[in-house]
Amino acid sequence: MFTVVFSDRRDRPLYEQLYAFIRHDIESGVLKADEKLPSSRKLAAHLNISRFTVENAYAQLIAEGYVTPVAKKGYYVCEVEPIDHPADHTADTASTADTADTADTAGRFACAKPFVFDLRTNTIGTEHFPYSVWNRLMRSGMRSDPAGLLGTMHPQGDEGLRAEIAVHLHKFRGMNVSPDQIVIGAGTEYLIGLITEILPDTAFAIEDPGYPKIPRILESRRAKVYPVPLDDEGMRVDAIEKTDAAAAVITPSHQFPLGIIMSIGRRQALLKWAQGGSGRRVLIEDDYNSEFHFALKPIPTLYSLDQNDKVIYLNSFANTLAPSLRIAYMVLPQKLLNRYLKTLYFYSCTVSAFEQHTLRLFMNGGYYERHLNRMRKIYRSRQAALTEGLAPLGERLRVSGQSAGLHLLLSVGDMTESALVTAAGRSGVFVAPISGFYVSPQSRDTHTVVAGFSGCRRDTLGQAAAALVKAWKNKTAPARGNSHIFIDPGPRKR
Amino acid sequence: MFTVVFSDRRDRPLYEQLYAFIRHDIESGVLKADEKLPSSRKLAAHLNISRFTVENAYAQLIAEGYVTPVAKKGYYVCEVEPIDHPADHTADTASTADTADTADTAGRFACAKPFVFDLRTNTIGTEHFPYSVWNRLMRSGMRSDPAGLLGTMHPQGDEGLRAEIAVHLHKFRGMNVSPDQIVIGAGTEYLIGLITEILPDTAFAIEDPGYPKIPRILESRRAKVYPVPLDDEGMRVDAIEKTDAAAAVITPSHQFPLGIIMSIGRRQALLKWAQGGSGRRVLIEDDYNSEFHFALKPIPTLYSLDQNDKVIYLNSFANTLAPSLRIAYMVLPQKLLNRYLKTLYFYSCTVSAFEQHTLRLFMNGGYYERHLNRMRKIYRSRQAALTEGLAPLGERLRVSGQSAGLHLLLSVGDMTESALVTAAGRSGVFVAPISGFYVSPQSRDTHTVVAGFSGCRRDTLGQAAAALVKAWKNKTAPARGNSHIFIDPGPRKR
Repeated sequence: MFTVVFSDRRDRPLYEQLYAFIRHDIESGVLKADEKLPSSRKLAAHLNISRFTVENAYAQLIAEGYVTPVAKKGYYVCEVEPIDHPADHTADTASTADTADTADTAGRFACAKPFVFDLRTNTIGTEHFPYSVWNRLMRSGMRSDPAGLLGTMHPQGDEGLRAEIAVHLHKFRGMNVSPDQIVIGAGTEYLIGLITEILPDTAFAIEDPGYPKIPRILESRRAKVYPVPLDDEGMRVDAIEKTDAAAAVITPSHQFPLGIIMSIGRRQALLKWAQGGSGRRVLIEDDYNSEFHFALKPIPTLYSLDQNDKVIYLNSFANTLAPSLRIAYMVLPQKLLNRYLKTLYFYSCTVSAFEQHTLRLFMNGGYYERHLNRMRKIYRSRQAALTEGLAPLGERLRVSGQSAGLHLLLSVGDMTESALVTAAGRSGVFVAPISGFYVSPQSRDTHTVVAGFSGCRRDTLGQAAAALVKAWKNKTAPARGNSHIFIDPGPRKR
Repeated sequence: MFTVVFSDRRDRPLYEQLYAFIRHDIESGVLKADEKLPSSRKLAAHLNISRFTVENAYAQLIAEGYVTPVAKKGYYVCEVEPIDHPADHTADTASTADTADTADTAGRFACAKPFVFDLRTNTIGTEHFPYSVWNRLMRSGMRSDPAGLLGTMHPQGDEGLRAEIAVHLHKFRGMNVSPDQIVIGAGTEYLIGLITEILPDTAFAIEDPGYPKIPRILESRRAKVYPVPLDDEGMRVDAIEKTDAAAAVITPSHQFPLGIIMSIGRRQALLKWAQGGSGRRVLIEDDYNSEFHFALKPIPTLYSLDQNDKVIYLNSFANTLAPSLRIAYMVLPQKLLNRYLKTLYFYSCTVSAFEQHTLRLFMNGGYYERHLNRMRKIYRSRQAALTEGLAPLGERLRVSGQSAGLHLLLSVGDMTESALVTAAGRSGVFVAPISGFYVSPQSRDTHTVVAGFSGCRRDTLGQAAAALVKAWKNKTAPARGNSHIFIDPGPRKR
């Protein structure tokens, strides 16, 4: 088994170093086509690193077509051909920032380098960020109340911003919320961590597939996690009931990544589930991207339907304004708010007072509503550019998840995700294999990729679509492929 | 026992509502002088609230002179006289923000309303914040790299800012640190939480007395906490060794609140302790306020003395720039950095990219160094104003903790802290009783108060000192007092 000497400087994460090492060996012929790689478990033990690191590296090699996974056999080196796109593939030039970026959403299936066309799901159209207004409001806030902005903040966040959020939730989501129920925090991740402190000793049901960071955060906080499969209405209540989970994290407005809009029947069934369990059960409704519904009006929130203080509502300004602002919020139902006030009120708010105050002025001045309307139009037109550009694939193409959100699911004939990702990558397009968003291997879809359209302009999306059409036209499963190929990272650490 | 009807609106925390209720009953004569209040345990059980909430309310009543604690007997209602200072004492007008504010540092001994002279420890001279430079740099940052600022960030924080911090640590603290070892986060509290995830299943030794939030954060993260007594050199290593703690959180540069500068011998003893315990032990060095050493040069950090990757270094811009910026950082030694990269690298950075970038430009332009030099002078002169103003108390006054930091410890003759706080409060000055910073009752100092001088101007401090002189002159322990009075909140929840 090969031994990797990891850099001491740690300017790149381990998995990227491992990826670069193996790729170099493949390109230089040290590792030959069809050679089998060690299992992730064995290699992790051999190198004394985490299995996750190895899987990350393998996943990237798979996404780029250096390695193919064969079901129940393992990972095999591909025959490397000259690559016909101009993207720089030198791992050495990839910054750790890029890596972190992709790791953000694509999870194990990240790519560390810029593709020509990067259809990641975690980029947004930041070129439309209203700088001049934002700057002006920031300055005027500093001028009007410098001492107030520099002192210690309310633990739940700026009171004026919370009032604006309450108004927004009423107007756009029909929710009746008091500003006192709102807790502002530095990102959804931070707030989910805080929720584990409001709900100690609680097992969490999560959507499978779902946002890959949710189980990582919960597990890092030592919470038990149950991945629960979905059907076409959303998280399966019968499957939750087989666990001892007392909390469930769900994305009813637009399931990530499948795009399911949870039916009203399933919403009611979940609320009914939440009433059981000796009063301990809680639903955590992540309403991300409800702002970007294109076809239908957004469906009422679980929070609004709930009559029993069972729903924590979560949302963020990451996708609507900018991820780097790190402003998210949650609405706590009365009973959990009391618990928060009793036990966690001592925590300082994690978001800068300057930016909270600026956002408050931004919302109060109507700029946020205008920005949302503008971005909704832009994203709808970007979605159209991508789907229209893929039309030449004809009936072999199946598109889903169009009614909302900032990405689409694509499948083409009987092509496996591995074949789709590899062919796309060779044409310079990054799309993410859907299996990267699954926790359990059983139910895993293996013939679909996720394509984000929010980070590219219309013309770029048209070119990306053309490259995908070229890559995927008249292709079936790849030579080595069989229809059972899947990527199995093994049982998930609990 | 009385029953309190808590407001449903929750616009004030429970403890403040309970405080207002009891105070109202004392003022209106429902509760009579010398009447005994229920124990915090009994009242908590009766009202179905946390004992901490009751203790908080009692502590505030004690600090304001409504209630007196009598050792081994309990809490007694004081005779209420007309109060001779103009501060508004109507609890109903106190905002939760004020409460949160004071709760920040004074812990259980917070006061929710503005005193005439507020010598809290968690306020800083924000009137000297360099707005115009900050604003200009913020704008120029947005102009020069808007897309970079709006995209997803490096999980450890802005690389340029980390480079500036590394330079600063080298120049001012003699530390050799790579920017790769630095993790930026939204406040020290957030980073201490993150440390519990880097060090799972670890018991923590904390300084007793110490910063009251540390045990609360650790316990909220389900870590076992051992309060360890101090001697005049710092945390007692023999006392740590009686526990199974594998981590110790310490403030060697300026112990909070006692102001001890940890001796070199104790530093070495702690480093030696850290080398035991089968390699699991870690020291967490909170270097807060090392920037504000007035008499001596700041002592080298534990981090610099360490040869064995045993020290996590923590610091923040809260006291040097503004608490509301929420920018803190930690330096991880190599071994723990590897663990962080393996297990926690998925977390997004919690600090806004705009403000990280602005701080980077602020440091790079030399503005931070100039600001520190300026504030050091200002704080030194504020300290002098307070101590000089207290001089008329003569030999009865004992002052300690002058060599660094933003507060002083004061004791006067044989006056108990309760008598000091009550008399000061009646003269319109808020000072905090030191017992509020202790966890264990055994070693508790009961004759000292903590007076912060960073949040008031020189002239105000002069007036505050004059009011204190008037309040404390020719006073001994109060009528009901005996020299063994202490406040015992009972055994700490683990």
